[in-house]
Amino acid sequence: MEDRIRDATMENLWNMWYSELDRNRSGLTFRVGQVLYSGHSDFQRIEVFDTPAFGKVLVMYGSVMLTEKDEFVYHEMLAHPALHVHPAPKKVLIVGGGDGGTLREVVKHDRVERATLVEIDREVCRICKQYFPSVACAIDSPKTRLVFQDGAVYMAETNERYDLVLADVSDPVGPAEVVFQKPFHLNVFDRLNDDGIFVAQTQSPYYHHDTIRKLYRNLRQVFPIVRMYLAHIPTYPGAIWSFAFCSKQHDPLEVLQPSSIEGLRYYNTELHRGSFALPTYVAELIEA
Amino acid sequence: MEDRIRDATMENLWNMWYSELDRNRSGLTFRVGQVLYSGHSDFQRIEVFDTPAFGKVLVMYGSVMLTEKDEFVYHEMLAHPALHVHPAPKKVLIVGGGDGGTLREVVKHDRVERATLVEIDREVCRICKQYFPSVACAIDSPKTRLVFQDGAVYMAETNERYDLVLADVSDPVGPAEVVFQKPFHLNVFDRLNDDGIFVAQTQSPYYHHDTIRKLYRNLRQVFPIVRMYLAHIPTYPGAIWSFAFCSKQHDPLEVLQPSSIEGLRYYNTELHRGSFALPTYVAELIEA
Repeated sequence: MEDRIRDATMENLWNMWYSELDRNRSGLTFRVGQVLYSGHSDFQRIEVFDTPAFGKVLVMYGSVMLTEKDEFVYHEMLAHPALHVHPAPKKVLIVGGGDGGTLREVVKHDRVERATLVEIDREVCRICKQYFPSVACAIDSPKTRLVFQDGAVYMAETNERYDLVLADVSDPVGPAEVVFQKPFHLNVFDRLNDDGIFVAQTQSPYYHHDTIRKLYRNLRQVFPIVRMYLAHIPTYPGAIWSFAFCSKQHDPLEVLQPSSIEGLRYYNTELHRGSFALPTYVAELIEA
Repeated sequence: MEDRIRDATMENLWNMWYSELDRNRSGLTFRVGQVLYSGHSDFQRIEVFDTPAFGKVLVMYGSVMLTEKDEFVYHEMLAHPALHVHPAPKKVLIVGGGDGGTLREVVKHDRVERATLVEIDREVCRICKQYFPSVACAIDSPKTRLVFQDGAVYMAETNERYDLVLADVSDPVGPAEVVFQKPFHLNVFDRLNDDGIFVAQTQSPYYHHDTIRKLYRNLRQVFPIVRMYLAHIPTYPGAIWSFAFCSKQHDPLEVLQPSSIEGLRYYNTELHRGSFALPTYVAELIEA
């Protein structure tokens, strides 16, 4: 009986749909089989759905954060390009990323000795450990250090130095807004070692033109090397997603360490190079 | 008054939505401001919508064929890679493509002397000339020869020889089905000159796994060089789209002519190379 109810809710007999629209005009829509969790933390509304199209889906602040089906793209592409460029990424800082997906990719690298995750919202970790164990699996790794604090405050106050800083934050509205601003970038630059690398997700070049233009202008004032790369993430707005590779010394088009990581489903050496080749309309967006 | 009605229909007061779903589970949804045309040709149902998100949209056989906002991606990426690899693409054949978008890109190349467009459905040309003049603009070019015939029949019967054949057809259901099958590919091989190139749209690697696996297996039995390249098309299923580059001699990763075409918004030399770098899960899909 329970199986039959589950089958019905996952297929056509259950008419709940989630639609994430850009300016109420267009967007992704998908059937929701079951709402597994719906609540508020101190910082944001959080939902977990089970869906026929994408498996379990995490929604925060009204946006899809991850789905079981395609989370590998975002997490591999936020973590591995920098980890394959830096020759000795011993100390890695992840700002945000409380779901643990980026952390999972970071600790796959033998050369990483410690991964510090600074997440403002403790509830995100708790919920992901419960509902997304395959994503949150490295939160309890011996390499991991968890800090529950505002990432921007941590960045301003810490005395630690890092080889890599990865900004794994949600959209620039709500709690993540400060992470898209110049004072944060100046603090990141300051806390990076002399050959350090900063990578940030920088929204969709198909939709978020103004955000991207401003962001890259700021980043270029802080870092000597700033390059955009792209990944295809079907459940994010526009399905094309950009990342800023900001570096003090290492150019991601010139330095590339051989990969010893097995089982990656998106990232590979050819793809690394290809992801920095931008369509003309995207390249024009970030021209100085 | 008319302006006010138009504003209302294009914005939030008009609650008509178009949703193109994969297995009734997920997909793209967008607001429809006005239905400009809705009818049947001898071959298929055809609709033209005006939309706030994507401008005018052409829907055929229940699938978005093109939108004013992002048609440049598909048409540039179907035409220009082969046109930048072949050293002298004098005679080009487009199978399908009655909207004229691929033709518009082909005739931009000075070296192209004649572009033959074989479209099964005369209505598609007529409707696109009326509603999409910026796409259909080359249909009356002096370089263009129009043939209204089934592309597969034309391919089997013609005595002409071509430098390039571009398959600009809809999904492999309905009138375009035969163009995805091996007898058609054998005829294409036969009608190509000794250094000829065949390019075909080959669906979304995110959704259409079985179609793609079979298609590339067939193509590899016919052509000595078969490579997949990708483009990001926001309004197509999964928003990631694949193309097969099938060649008798020229390898698209080794031969590349300098580009003299101005005003392209997606294609460029770096992007040409990058588009052949496949995510691991896509590369695995077409492994022999």
